[in-house]
Amino acid sequence: MKIPVVQKIMNANDQIAAENRARFDETNTLVINVMASPGAGKTSLIMATASHLPDLRIGVIEGDVASTIDADRIAEAGMPVVQINTGGGCHLDAPMVKSALDELPLDDIDVLIIENVGNLICPAGFDLGAHLAVVLGNIPEGDDKPYKYPGMFTDADAIILHKVDMLPHFDFDVEYFRAGVQKLHPDIPLFLVSSRTGEGIAEWGEWLLERRRELRTA
Amino acid sequence: MKIPVVQKIMNANDQIAAENRARFDETNTLVINVMASPGAGKTSLIMATASHLPDLRIGVIEGDVASTIDADRIAEAGMPVVQINTGGGCHLDAPMVKSALDELPLDDIDVLIIENVGNLICPAGFDLGAHLAVVLGNIPEGDDKPYKYPGMFTDADAIILHKVDMLPHFDFDVEYFRAGVQKLHPDIPLFLVSSRTGEGIAEWGEWLLERRRELRTA
Repeated sequence: MKIPVVQKIMNANDQIAAENRARFDETNTLVINVMASPGAGKTSLIMATASHLPDLRIGVIEGDVASTIDADRIAEAGMPVVQINTGGGCHLDAPMVKSALDELPLDDIDVLIIENVGNLICPAGFDLGAHLAVVLGNIPEGDDKPYKYPGMFTDADAIILHKVDMLPHFDFDVEYFRAGVQKLHPDIPLFLVSSRTGEGIAEWGEWLLERRRELRTA
Repeated sequence: MKIPVVQKIMNANDQIAAENRARFDETNTLVINVMASPGAGKTSLIMATASHLPDLRIGVIEGDVASTIDADRIAEAGMPVVQINTGGGCHLDAPMVKSALDELPLDDIDVLIIENVGNLICPAGFDLGAHLAVVLGNIPEGDDKPYKYPGMFTDADAIILHKVDMLPHFDFDVEYFRAGVQKLHPDIPLFLVSSRTGEGIAEWGEWLLERRRELRTA
Protein backbone atom coordinates (compact mmCIF):
# COMPACT_ATOMS: atom_id res chain seq x y z
CA MET A 1 0.00 0.00 0.00
CA LYS A 2 1.32 3.41 -0.90
CA ILE A 3 1.17 5.85 1.97
CA PRO A 4 0.12 9.28 0.81
CA VAL A 5 2.63 12.01 1.63
CA VAL A 6 1.38 15.55 1.94
CA GLN A 7 4.02 18.10 1.07
CA LYS A 8 4.39 21.03 3.38
CA ILE A 9 1.91 23.52 2.00
CA MET A 10 3.41 26.99 1.80
CA ASN A 11 1.42 29.72 3.42
CA ALA A 12 0.56 32.81 1.41
CA ASN A 13 3.58 34.75 2.63
CA ASP A 14 6.06 31.98 1.80
CA GLN A 15 4.47 31.48 -1.60
CA ILE A 16 4.98 35.12 -2.53
CA ALA A 17 8.45 35.10 -0.97
CA ALA A 18 9.39 32.26 -3.33
CA GLU A 19 8.06 34.26 -6.28
CA ASN A 20 10.07 37.28 -5.17
CA ARG A 21 13.21 35.14 -4.92
CA ALA A 22 12.68 33.70 -8.39
CA ARG A 23 12.42 37.22 -9.74
CA PHE A 24 15.67 38.24 -8.00
CA ASP A 25 17.45 35.18 -9.40
CA GLU A 26 16.35 36.08 -12.92
CA THR A 27 18.03 39.47 -12.68
CA ASN A 28 21.03 38.19 -10.73
CA THR A 29 20.17 40.54 -7.89
CA LEU A 30 21.48 39.51 -4.48
CA VAL A 31 18.88 40.44 -1.88
CA ILE A 32 19.67 41.02 1.79
CA ASN A 33 17.09 41.40 4.55
CA VAL A 34 18.67 43.71 7.16
CA MET A 35 17.08 43.51 10.60
CA ALA A 36 17.81 45.28 13.89
CA SER A 37 16.36 47.36 16.71
CA PRO A 38 15.25 50.94 16.09
CA GLY A 39 18.26 53.22 15.81
CA ALA A 40 20.81 50.45 15.22
CA GLY A 41 22.20 52.36 12.25
CA LYS A 42 20.78 50.27 9.42
CA THR A 43 20.50 53.21 7.04
CA SER A 44 23.96 54.50 7.95
CA LEU A 45 25.39 51.05 7.21
CA ILE A 46 23.76 51.04 3.76
CA MET A 47 25.19 54.50 3.03
CA ALA A 48 28.68 53.50 4.20
CA THR A 49 28.54 50.27 2.18
CA ALA A 50 27.56 52.17 -0.96
CA SER A 51 30.36 54.68 -0.46
CA HIS A 52 32.89 51.90 -0.01
CA LEU A 53 31.68 49.96 -3.07
CA PRO A 54 30.92 52.65 -5.67
CA ASP A 55 30.94 50.14 -8.56
CA LEU A 56 28.30 47.94 -6.95
CA ARG A 57 24.81 48.99 -8.00
CA ILE A 58 22.84 48.99 -4.75
CA GLY A 59 19.07 49.45 -4.51
CA VAL A 60 17.10 49.79 -1.30
CA ILE A 61 13.65 49.02 0.07
CA GLU A 62 13.02 50.99 3.26
CA GLY A 63 10.55 49.57 5.79
CA ASP A 64 9.18 51.86 8.48
CA VAL A 65 6.02 52.19 10.51
CA ALA A 66 5.78 55.80 9.34
CA SER A 67 7.79 58.59 7.63
CA THR A 68 10.16 58.68 4.64
CA ILE A 69 13.15 59.88 6.66
CA ASP A 70 15.37 56.94 5.73
CA ALA A 71 14.31 56.77 2.08
CA ASP A 72 15.03 60.48 1.70
CA ARG A 73 18.62 59.91 2.89
CA ILE A 74 19.07 56.99 0.49
CA ALA A 75 17.58 58.89 -2.47
CA GLU A 76 19.83 61.85 -1.76
CA ALA A 77 22.81 59.52 -2.07
CA GLY A 78 21.59 58.60 -5.56
CA MET A 79 20.43 55.04 -4.96
CA PRO A 80 17.11 53.72 -6.30
CA VAL A 81 14.82 53.37 -3.28
CA VAL A 82 11.22 52.55 -2.40
CA GLN A 83 9.71 53.36 0.99
CA ILE A 84 7.19 50.95 2.48
CA ASN A 85 5.17 52.36 5.40
CA THR A 86 3.53 49.58 7.38
CA GLY A 87 1.16 51.98 9.15
CA GLY A 88 1.59 50.29 12.51
CA GLY A 89 2.73 46.85 11.35
CA CYS A 90 5.81 45.58 13.17
CA HIS A 91 7.58 43.90 10.24
CA LEU A 92 7.68 43.69 6.45
CA ASP A 93 6.14 40.71 4.67
CA ALA A 94 6.60 39.21 1.21
CA PRO A 95 3.52 40.86 -0.39
CA MET A 96 4.75 44.30 0.72
CA VAL A 97 8.12 43.61 -0.87
CA LYS A 98 6.46 42.30 -4.03
CA SER A 99 4.45 45.50 -4.34
CA ALA A 100 7.66 47.53 -4.17
CA LEU A 101 9.47 45.59 -6.89
CA ASP A 102 7.67 47.18 -9.82
CA GLU A 103 9.09 50.51 -8.71
CA LEU A 104 12.71 49.30 -8.83
CA PRO A 105 14.96 48.75 -11.88
CA LEU A 106 15.96 45.24 -10.80
CA ASP A 107 17.92 44.61 -14.02
CA ASP A 108 20.26 47.39 -13.00
CA ILE A 109 20.60 46.44 -9.32
CA ASP A 110 23.39 44.11 -8.20
CA VAL A 111 22.46 44.08 -4.53
CA LEU A 112 19.04 44.98 -3.17
CA ILE A 113 19.06 45.77 0.53
CA ILE A 114 15.73 45.51 2.31
CA GLU A 115 15.88 47.55 5.50
CA ASN A 116 13.22 45.97 7.68
CA VAL A 117 11.17 47.78 10.34
CA GLY A 118 13.22 48.52 13.48
CA ASN A 119 12.31 45.57 15.67
CA LEU A 120 14.47 42.80 17.14
CA ILE A 121 11.62 40.25 17.33
CA CYS A 122 8.86 40.19 14.71
CA PRO A 123 10.73 40.56 11.37
CA ALA A 124 12.57 37.25 11.92
CA GLY A 125 9.41 35.23 11.32
CA PHE A 126 8.70 36.42 7.76
CA ASP A 127 10.48 35.27 4.61
CA LEU A 128 10.58 38.18 2.16
CA GLY A 129 12.29 36.31 -0.65
CA ALA A 130 15.72 37.64 0.29
CA HIS A 131 18.75 35.37 -0.17
CA LEU A 132 20.36 36.32 3.12
CA ALA A 133 19.45 37.78 6.49
CA VAL A 134 21.87 40.16 8.20
CA VAL A 135 21.21 41.20 11.80
CA LEU A 136 22.79 44.24 13.48
CA GLY A 137 23.61 44.48 17.14
CA ASN A 138 25.13 47.73 18.36
CA ILE A 139 27.30 48.96 21.19
CA PRO A 140 24.90 51.37 22.96
CA GLU A 141 22.18 48.73 22.94
CA GLY A 142 24.19 46.38 25.14
CA ASP A 143 26.06 43.07 24.92
CA ASP A 144 23.18 40.88 26.18
CA LYS A 145 20.96 41.07 23.11
CA PRO A 146 21.73 37.57 21.67
CA TYR A 147 20.69 36.13 25.06
CA LYS A 148 17.49 38.16 25.31
CA TYR A 149 16.38 38.01 21.65
CA PRO A 150 17.68 34.63 20.46
CA GLY A 151 15.22 34.16 17.58
CA MET A 152 16.58 37.04 15.57
CA PHE A 153 20.22 35.99 15.93
CA THR A 154 19.57 32.27 15.34
CA ASP A 155 18.22 32.72 11.82
CA ALA A 156 20.80 35.24 10.59
CA ASP A 157 23.44 34.54 7.93
CA ALA A 158 25.78 37.21 9.26
CA ILE A 159 25.88 39.52 12.27
CA ILE A 160 27.20 43.05 12.27
CA LEU A 161 28.13 44.53 15.62
CA HIS A 162 27.62 48.19 14.78
CA LYS A 163 28.79 51.52 16.26
CA VAL A 164 32.06 49.99 17.52
CA ASP A 165 33.53 53.52 17.64
CA MET A 166 31.37 53.92 20.76
CA LEU A 167 33.13 51.11 22.67
CA PRO A 168 35.12 53.54 24.86
CA HIS A 169 31.89 55.14 26.12
CA PHE A 170 29.88 52.03 27.01
CA ASP A 171 30.29 49.05 29.26
CA PHE A 172 30.13 46.47 26.45
CA ASP A 173 31.92 43.11 26.52
CA VAL A 174 32.53 42.07 22.89
CA GLU A 175 33.48 38.52 23.90
CA TYR A 176 30.25 38.09 25.86
CA PHE A 177 28.29 39.26 22.81
CA ARG A 178 30.30 36.93 20.55
CA ALA A 179 29.75 33.97 22.90
CA GLY A 180 26.00 34.67 22.90
CA VAL A 181 25.89 34.67 19.11
CA GLN A 182 28.08 31.58 18.71
CA LYS A 183 26.00 29.62 21.22
CA LEU A 184 23.03 30.05 18.86
CA HIS A 185 24.93 29.79 15.62
CA PRO A 186 28.51 28.52 15.95
CA ASP A 187 30.09 29.46 12.60
CA ILE A 188 28.28 32.66 11.79
CA PRO A 189 30.38 35.54 10.41
CA LEU A 190 30.52 38.45 12.86
CA PHE A 191 31.73 41.84 11.62
CA LEU A 192 32.72 44.67 13.96
CA VAL A 193 31.75 47.81 12.09
CA SER A 194 31.50 51.56 12.52
CA SER A 195 29.76 53.29 9.63
CA ARG A 196 30.90 56.60 11.09
CA THR A 197 34.65 55.84 11.07
CA GLY A 198 34.61 53.19 8.33
CA GLU A 199 36.09 50.52 10.60
CA GLY A 200 35.19 47.02 9.41
CA ILE A 201 33.36 48.19 6.28
CA ALA A 202 36.02 46.63 4.01
CA GLU A 203 35.60 43.16 5.57
CA TRP A 204 31.82 43.37 5.48
CA GLY A 205 31.95 44.65 1.87
CA GLU A 206 34.23 41.77 0.85
CA TRP A 207 31.78 39.25 2.34
CA LEU A 208 28.93 40.92 0.44
CA LEU A 209 30.83 40.81 -2.87
CA GLU A 210 31.67 37.15 -2.29
CA ARG A 211 27.99 36.30 -1.74
CA ARG A 212 27.14 38.20 -4.92
CA ARG A 213 29.76 36.20 -6.87
CA GLU A 214 28.29 32.95 -5.49
CA LEU A 215 24.81 33.95 -6.68
CA ARG A 216 26.06 34.64 -10.21
CA THR A 217 27.81 31.27 -10.49
CA ALA A 218 24.91 29.35 -8.93
CA MET B 1 -39.03 54.26 20.47
CA LYS B 2 -36.03 53.42 22.56
CA ILE B 3 -32.93 52.82 20.50
CA PRO B 4 -30.90 49.93 21.84
CA VAL B 5 -27.33 50.85 22.73
CA VAL B 6 -24.70 48.14 22.67
CA GLN B 7 -21.85 48.81 25.05
CA LYS B 8 -18.37 48.28 23.74
CA ILE B 9 -17.66 44.66 24.55
CA MET B 10 -14.23 44.27 26.08
CA ASN B 11 -11.98 41.69 24.52
CA ALA B 12 -10.37 39.06 26.73
CA ASN B 13 -7.18 41.07 27.19
CA ASP B 14 -8.99 44.25 28.22
CA GLN B 15 -11.24 42.31 30.57
CA ILE B 16 -8.27 40.87 32.44
CA ALA B 17 -6.49 44.23 32.31
CA ALA B 18 -9.48 45.77 34.11
CA GLU B 19 -9.31 43.02 36.73
CA ASN B 20 -5.59 43.65 37.20
CA ARG B 21 -6.24 47.38 37.64
CA ALA B 22 -8.96 46.75 40.22
CA ARG B 23 -6.53 44.63 42.16
CA PHE B 24 -3.87 47.37 42.02
CA ASP B 25 -6.39 49.95 43.22
CA GLU B 26 -7.31 47.76 46.20
CA THR B 27 -3.71 47.72 47.41
CA ASN B 28 -3.02 51.36 46.47
CA THR B 29 -0.27 50.21 44.14
CA LEU B 30 0.57 52.62 41.32
CA VAL B 31 1.42 50.57 38.23
CA ILE B 32 3.57 51.85 35.38
CA ASN B 33 4.01 50.12 32.02
CA VAL B 34 7.51 51.03 30.82
CA MET B 35 8.06 50.58 27.08
CA ALA B 36 11.06 51.18 24.82
CA SER B 37 13.38 49.65 22.25
CA PRO B 38 15.84 46.93 23.23
CA GLY B 39 18.74 48.44 25.14
CA ALA B 40 17.05 51.74 25.97
CA GLY B 41 18.08 51.37 29.60
CA LYS B 42 14.73 50.43 31.12
CA THR B 43 16.28 48.28 33.86
CA SER B 44 18.94 50.90 34.63
CA LEU B 45 16.20 53.51 34.99
CA ILE B 46 14.34 51.30 37.48
CA MET B 47 17.55 50.80 39.49
CA ALA B 48 18.35 54.52 39.50
CA THR B 49 14.78 55.40 40.49
CA ALA B 50 14.89 52.96 43.41
CA SER B 51 18.23 54.35 44.59
CA HIS B 52 16.89 57.89 44.46
CA LEU B 53 13.65 57.01 46.32
CA PRO B 54 14.76 54.52 48.99
CA ASP B 55 11.52 54.96 51.00
CA LEU B 56 9.31 54.08 48.06
CA ARG B 57 8.59 50.35 47.96
CA ILE B 58 9.10 49.41 44.30
CA GLY B 59 8.26 46.03 42.79
CA VAL B 60 9.05 44.94 39.27
CA ILE B 61 7.69 42.63 36.58
CA GLU B 62 10.34 41.96 33.95
CA GLY B 63 9.19 41.08 30.43
CA ASP B 64 11.69 39.50 28.05
CA VAL B 65 11.60 37.09 25.13
CA ALA B 66 14.20 34.99 26.95
CA SER B 67 16.66 35.06 29.89
CA THR B 68 16.47 36.35 33.46
CA ILE B 69 19.29 38.86 33.05
CA ASP B 70 17.20 41.89 34.01
CA ALA B 71 15.32 40.19 36.85
CA ASP B 72 18.63 39.04 38.34
CA ARG B 73 19.83 42.65 38.47
CA ILE B 74 16.59 43.81 40.11
CA ALA B 75 16.61 40.97 42.66
CA GLU B 76 20.22 41.73 43.55
CA ALA B 77 19.13 45.29 44.38
CA GLY B 78 16.62 43.83 46.86
CA MET B 79 13.39 44.57 45.04
CA PRO B 80 10.60 41.98 44.69
CA VAL B 81 10.60 40.89 41.05
CA VAL B 82 8.95 38.37 38.73
CA GLN B 83 10.38 37.50 35.33
CA ILE B 84 7.97 36.78 32.47
CA ASN B 85 9.56 35.10 29.45
CA THR B 86 7.34 35.40 26.40
CA GLY B 87 9.22 32.70 24.49
CA GLY B 88 9.15 34.63 21.23
CA GLY B 89 6.17 36.90 21.89
CA CYS B 90 6.84 40.55 21.09
CA HIS B 91 4.93 42.15 23.98
CA LEU B 92 3.38 41.43 27.38
CA ASP B 93 -0.38 41.03 27.70
CA ALA B 94 -2.80 41.30 30.62
CA PRO B 95 -3.05 37.53 31.31
CA MET B 96 0.75 37.29 31.58
CA VAL B 97 0.76 40.12 34.10
CA LYS B 98 -2.12 38.54 36.01
CA SER B 99 -0.20 35.29 36.29
CA ALA B 100 2.75 37.18 37.80
CA LEU B 101 0.70 38.97 40.47
CA ASP B 102 0.35 36.01 42.81
CA GLU B 103 4.13 35.99 43.14
CA LEU B 104 4.31 39.62 44.28
CA PRO B 105 3.49 41.08 47.75
CA LEU B 106 1.22 43.79 46.31
CA ASP B 107 0.18 44.99 49.78
CA ASP B 108 3.77 45.99 50.38
CA ILE B 109 4.43 47.58 46.99
CA ASP B 110 3.81 51.30 46.46
CA VAL B 111 4.83 51.37 42.82
CA LEU B 112 4.91 48.35 40.53
CA ILE B 113 6.96 48.87 37.40
CA ILE B 114 6.22 46.54 34.50
CA GLU B 115 9.21 46.50 32.18
CA ASN B 116 7.74 45.44 28.86
CA VAL B 117 9.57 43.50 26.15
CA GLY B 118 12.08 45.67 24.27
CA ASN B 119 10.04 46.74 21.25
CA LEU B 120 8.95 50.19 20.08
CA ILE B 121 5.84 48.95 18.26
CA CYS B 122 3.84 45.97 19.57
CA PRO B 123 3.59 46.63 23.34
CA ALA B 124 1.58 49.85 22.75
CA GLY B 125 -1.48 47.89 21.65
CA PHE B 126 -2.03 45.90 24.86
CA ASP B 127 -3.56 47.21 28.07
CA LEU B 128 -1.93 45.41 31.01
CA GLY B 129 -3.99 47.06 33.73
CA ALA B 130 -1.29 49.64 34.46
CA HIS B 131 -2.34 53.16 35.46
CA LEU B 132 0.25 54.89 33.32
CA ALA B 133 2.44 54.24 30.30
CA VAL B 134 5.97 55.64 30.23
CA VAL B 135 7.97 55.46 26.99
CA LEU B 136 11.75 55.83 26.79
CA GLY B 137 13.61 57.29 23.87
CA ASN B 138 17.38 57.42 24.09
CA ILE B 139 20.25 59.41 22.64
CA PRO B 140 22.15 56.66 20.75
CA GLU B 141 18.91 55.50 19.13
CA GLY B 142 18.41 58.83 17.35
CA ASP B 143 16.15 61.87 17.45
CA ASP B 144 13.71 60.69 14.75
CA LYS B 145 11.94 57.96 16.72
CA PRO B 146 8.69 59.87 17.46
CA TYR B 147 8.34 60.43 13.70
CA LYS B 148 9.05 56.81 12.77
CA TYR B 149 7.17 55.07 15.61
CA PRO B 150 4.28 57.44 16.35
CA GLY B 151 1.94 54.87 17.93
CA MET B 152 4.16 54.26 20.92
CA PHE B 153 4.66 57.95 21.69
CA THR B 154 1.02 58.93 21.10
CA ASP B 155 -0.36 56.73 23.86
CA ALA B 156 2.26 57.51 26.52
CA ASP B 157 1.59 59.48 29.73
CA ALA B 158 5.20 60.60 30.03
CA ILE B 159 8.33 60.35 27.91
CA ILE B 160 11.83 59.88 29.23
CA LEU B 161 14.68 60.81 26.92
CA HIS B 162 17.32 58.51 28.35
CA LYS B 163 21.15 58.36 28.23
CA VAL B 164 21.45 62.16 27.96
CA ASP B 165 25.03 61.85 29.23
CA MET B 166 25.78 60.55 25.71
CA LEU B 167 24.69 63.78 23.98
CA PRO B 168 28.30 64.91 23.34
CA HIS B 169 29.00 61.70 21.39
CA PHE B 170 25.96 61.59 19.10
CA ASP B 171 24.39 63.84 16.52
CA PHE B 172 21.07 64.20 18.38
CA ASP B 173 18.83 67.28 18.18
CA VAL B 174 16.81 67.40 21.43
CA GLU B 175 14.45 70.07 20.05
CA TYR B 176 13.68 67.95 16.97
CA PHE B 177 12.86 65.02 19.27
CA ARG B 178 10.74 67.26 21.49
CA ALA B 179 8.87 68.70 18.49
CA GLY B 180 8.14 65.17 17.26
CA VAL B 181 6.70 64.17 20.62
CA GLN B 182 4.66 67.36 21.05
CA LYS B 183 3.18 67.05 17.58
CA LEU B 184 1.62 63.76 18.69
CA HIS B 185 0.86 64.74 22.25
CA PRO B 186 1.16 68.48 22.99
CA ASP B 187 1.27 68.60 26.80
CA ILE B 188 3.10 65.41 27.62
CA PRO B 189 5.80 65.57 30.31
CA LEU B 190 9.26 64.96 28.85
CA PHE B 191 12.14 64.18 31.21
CA LEU B 192 15.79 64.29 30.14
CA VAL B 193 17.45 61.59 32.20
CA SER B 194 20.75 59.78 32.60
CA SER B 195 20.55 56.83 34.97
CA ARG B 196 24.33 56.65 34.87
CA THR B 197 24.99 60.22 36.09
CA GLY B 198 21.68 60.75 37.90
CA GLU B 199 20.77 63.76 35.78
CA GLY B 200 17.00 64.28 35.70
CA ILE B 201 16.20 61.45 38.11
CA ALA B 202 14.94 63.90 40.76
CA GLU B 203 12.39 65.50 38.38
CA TRP B 204 11.21 62.12 37.10
CA GLY B 205 11.02 60.81 40.69
CA GLU B 206 8.97 63.82 41.79
CA TRP B 207 6.49 63.20 38.94
CA LEU B 208 6.23 59.55 39.98
CA LEU B 209 5.56 60.44 43.63
CA GLU B 210 2.94 62.97 42.57
CA ARG B 211 1.11 60.32 40.51
CA ARG B 212 1.25 57.98 43.50
CA ARG B 213 -0.27 60.68 45.76
CA GLU B 214 -3.05 61.20 43.20
CA LEU B 215 -3.85 57.48 43.24
CA ARG B 216 -4.11 57.40 47.02
CA THR B 217 -6.50 60.35 47.14
CA ALA B 218 -8.61 59.11 44.22
